[in-house]
Amino acid sequence: MYDVLNVREDFPVLKNVIYLDNAATTQTPVQAVSAMLDYFYKYAANHGRGAHRLARETTNHFEDAREIVAAFLNMDVAKTIFTKNATESINTVSRGFPWKKGDHVIVTLVEHHSNLLPWMRLKEMGVELSVVKPDICGVVNPEDIRSSIKDTTRLIAVNHVSNVFGSIQDIGKIVGIARQNGVKVLVDGSQSAGNMALDIKSIDPDFFVCPGHKGLLGPQGTGLLYIKEPDIIEPVFLGGGMVSAVTTDSFKMEPSPAKFEAGTPNIPGVIGLGRAVEYVADIGVKSIEKHERSLAKDTARRLGELDGVEVYGPKDRAGVVSFNVTGMNAHDVAMILDQTRKICVRSGYHCAMPGIDHLGVKGTVRASFALYNTEEEVDTLIRTVSDITSLVS
Amino acid sequence: MYDVLNVREDFPVLKNVIYLDNAATTQTPVQAVSAMLDYFYKYAANHGRGAHRLARETTNHFEDAREIVAAFLNMDVAKTIFTKNATESINTVSRGFPWKKGDHVIVTLVEHHSNLLPWMRLKEMGVELSVVKPDICGVVNPEDIRSSIKDTTRLIAVNHVSNVFGSIQDIGKIVGIARQNGVKVLVDGSQSAGNMALDIKSIDPDFFVCPGHKGLLGPQGTGLLYIKEPDIIEPVFLGGGMVSAVTTDSFKMEPSPAKFEAGTPNIPGVIGLGRAVEYVADIGVKSIEKHERSLAKDTARRLGELDGVEVYGPKDRAGVVSFNVTGMNAHDVAMILDQTRKICVRSGYHCAMPGIDHLGVKGTVRASFALYNTEEEVDTLIRTVSDITSLVS
Repeated sequence: MYDVLNVREDFPVLKNVIYLDNAATTQTPVQAVSAMLDYFYKYAANHGRGAHRLARETTNHFEDAREIVAAFLNMDVAKTIFTKNATESINTVSRGFPWKKGDHVIVTLVEHHSNLLPWMRLKEMGVELSVVKPDICGVVNPEDIRSSIKDTTRLIAVNHVSNVFGSIQDIGKIVGIARQNGVKVLVDGSQSAGNMALDIKSIDPDFFVCPGHKGLLGPQGTGLLYIKEPDIIEPVFLGGGMVSAVTTDSFKMEPSPAKFEAGTPNIPGVIGLGRAVEYVADIGVKSIEKHERSLAKDTARRLGELDGVEVYGPKDRAGVVSFNVTGMNAHDVAMILDQTRKICVRSGYHCAMPGIDHLGVKGTVRASFALYNTEEEVDTLIRTVSDITSLVS
Repeated sequence: MYDVLNVREDFPVLKNVIYLDNAATTQTPVQAVSAMLDYFYKYAANHGRGAHRLARETTNHFEDAREIVAAFLNMDVAKTIFTKNATESINTVSRGFPWKKGDHVIVTLVEHHSNLLPWMRLKEMGVELSVVKPDICGVVNPEDIRSSIKDTTRLIAVNHVSNVFGSIQDIGKIVGIARQNGVKVLVDGSQSAGNMALDIKSIDPDFFVCPGHKGLLGPQGTGLLYIKEPDIIEPVFLGGGMVSAVTTDSFKMEPSPAKFEAGTPNIPGVIGLGRAVEYVADIGVKSIEKHERSLAKDTARRLGELDGVEVYGPKDRAGVVSFNVTGMNAHDVAMILDQTRKICVRSGYHCAMPGIDHLGVKGTVRASFALYNTEEEVDTLIRTVSDITSLVS
């Protein structure tokens, strides 16, 4: 195992607060921020568009980042596409897939809005949507997905880990079911990439998406899209850097990944992301997973032991714990945690309203963990929530 | 006027090279990079999604940046949308506009690919495209646009300044012609925002786009989109942060700008952009324009006096000078400038193949200027190009 106190030195903001909002965004280590500084102060230029020394150095660093990220998740470099966020990644698939009227898509009720709305919008094109219900802990039964498949089903879109429940879906089984039925599958790894050991070639989804700024510890403004067969997806954006020939009548697109990266990319962000992923790899994602899940398990257990606290999600969970204090609004609980102990948690619908509705509540308080959180922070959280319960008991 | 040597202190990379590739991207001042550092080290969190202190501080800084940028260009804050680049901005309009089969769009032959390909793709939907030719200096005659307007014309998309020629289009007149004919107009300000004094409310286009990383001096990964009537444009991306209510059957979108900013935005980038725009405003965009255009004018004149050098573009130009050395490939000229004097210029088609074809050449060498370039750098460029001409004479 790694030394958590050592790791915390790399995240200056942790000196000021107890940061338990990692499912929304993690902090970025100084090593990654320094890599961005180097870019700005030593060699900043545009990517892939010039013969001069700065443009070459920028392009080299940018493409090095692509190789680092691709190697970390075991994806082909040519199929590793940089986007601005996971939302762009999912919408690229939903808008670029060759839909026909009458096609059918399956999602689940515990998706983030970004993995629900893009599929709902396809109704305008005559694409039908089925929404599979998870159990009350947010776990989807793969057999329920299997039984939803029809002759017209083209794609299953499913989260790997729920950002509300911390539930872990059986992605291996779901991808297997998709394969058996000739259906494509998109895995939303927003809460798993960098938090759990992932081998994309082994999981073998058709599409994999994640942000750069959560488990991968990169800066906001970065996202990833893996497309197994890039030729079947039309790019959403057209512009510079993704065409090899243009007349006013026609144009010829570059192959992936350039095809999907029109315009000037977030060069500092991608370079920072590459360095952040190196940092995660150096620490070891398996150790990180163990640490985060251990903190979450303890938190869920100890919160569950408090009178007047309801905890959601399964026993076997990733680093996310949703809960409520009976008789109190989730936002009020979050506000008190912040005001009294500088504990930063999220509250509300977590961009997943149907999943929260499924719980029959008006929102939850959510504590979510990263590699740098400590047992002492959990102690403070539990103690403060306990104090809050006494306010309403 | 401002002190150029003082300004140069804010751009460390300028100590190492003669950077004349500002039409591709400018350098970012230390003040803006420091603002990004403050974000990462003091208050990083996700935007608009949490009640805790870091989320609130992040949201405040992010929205402050929106106000700064909106004030600088004189745009309504609610109509000022952050994108990842100008390419996303243009594609958002081309994909979100309520097209009908038979509609007609007018562009010019001196557009960057990002302001040409998105309109060309509309042919798939039965939208017709007319391409107006500029003169040999890259200047579009507004009357040629007027005479291309038909009953079915819905939109004119035109650059403000050509990234190849440095020519300045008569945007005021073109917008006026559009208004008279009930046609909407998109102005691509990629080469003018931050380089020339712009008052969007006074110009009054329907759409205005620009990157954050050129004249505005912000980091790469930032762009702007102004939409006069945000309600008529459907967002390209759906996801978190842009909806107020979601069931599995329907959803309700937030108003602009949130509607167009699904998912986690480039928070550090936008904060850096806000600070960069403050920097530009402090120096004064009129002084910057005067400086850049003076350098470009001198460069064009002096290059034109060299035997064996052909200079393109009009006499009255923005800070962009395209040229060729007779008998030499543009890339070779750029390579020699870099290798011998560390002069960073662009060469080739500049993501504007039809415009370059219009010149009847296979590419150009392009020197483009920013507020921090000097007469001494121009001297070195001219001397080195002169030496290069002697290689082939």
